[in-house]
Amino acid sequence: MSPKLDHVAIVVRNLEEAIPYYIHELGMALVYEEEQAVAGVRAAYIDAGNALLQLLQPVRPGPIQEFLDEHGEGLHHICLAVTDIPETLNQLTNEAGTPVSIGGWGRRTCFLRHVPEGVRIELTEVELAR
Amino acid sequence: MSPKLDHVAIVVRNLEEAIPYYIHELGMALVYEEEQAVAGVRAAYIDAGNALLQLLQPVRPGPIQEFLDEHGEGLHHICLAVTDIPETLNQLTNEAGTPVSIGGWGRRTCFLRHVPEGVRIELTEVELAR
Repeated sequence: MSPKLDHVAIVVRNLEEAIPYYIHELGMALVYEEEQAVAGVRAAYIDAGNALLQLLQPVRPGPIQEFLDEHGEGLHHICLAVTDIPETLNQLTNEAGTPVSIGGWGRRTCFLRHVPEGVRIELTEVELAR
Repeated sequence: MSPKLDHVAIVVRNLEEAIPYYIHELGMALVYEEEQAVAGVRAAYIDAGNALLQLLQPVRPGPIQEFLDEHGEGLHHICLAVTDIPETLNQLTNEAGTPVSIGGWGRRTCFLRHVPEGVRIELTEVELAR
């Protein structure tokens, strides 16, 4: 198991207001936008060179809206890219993960149930299903 | 300006308790540990493949201890590696940054004063002063 950091997720109230700073000030590129119906969010992916930043705006009630209500905007989770999610879960101790679904960018995804030191960890698969 | 993600920082109560999950479960490598006197922390750097995770344990009163007291453990900031911090600050609008100091791993560092959507952003320089 040799994961790599796929993205760092950031919860924002408004994507259109959040994106320009990363593009026009920090010089990063907006590479993809989508609505993720299951998660109740709109997502924007920004290329930070070697990894992505994923901006998430809640558009319906759900975990991201709850996070926003409770904590305000800010860093939400990290996502590790692995070759195979079920195989990765098998290698972890007492870790079934949340049910695997098609998540951001059409890739298989799940969250680990273990949240080490408050850090939510998502797994996604390296191969894009696009 | 084409920054890359250098590390994602995570505040923890106890480094020794936090490190093993990343090493033994997630299969990452512990690459460096140090005490950062100015910041009042002990830091451990974990190689997440294409970027680092920086675990920070406060050892003295300061911003990291305050974060821990207020928010508990969790994601704290992202750090972007740039070629030259003063040059980068000059390219940003109304951004003086915090005073540049020698930070983690002996590299020059500062934090941006602008905290977009609650995301603390540190700058560090690519060239290590080791």
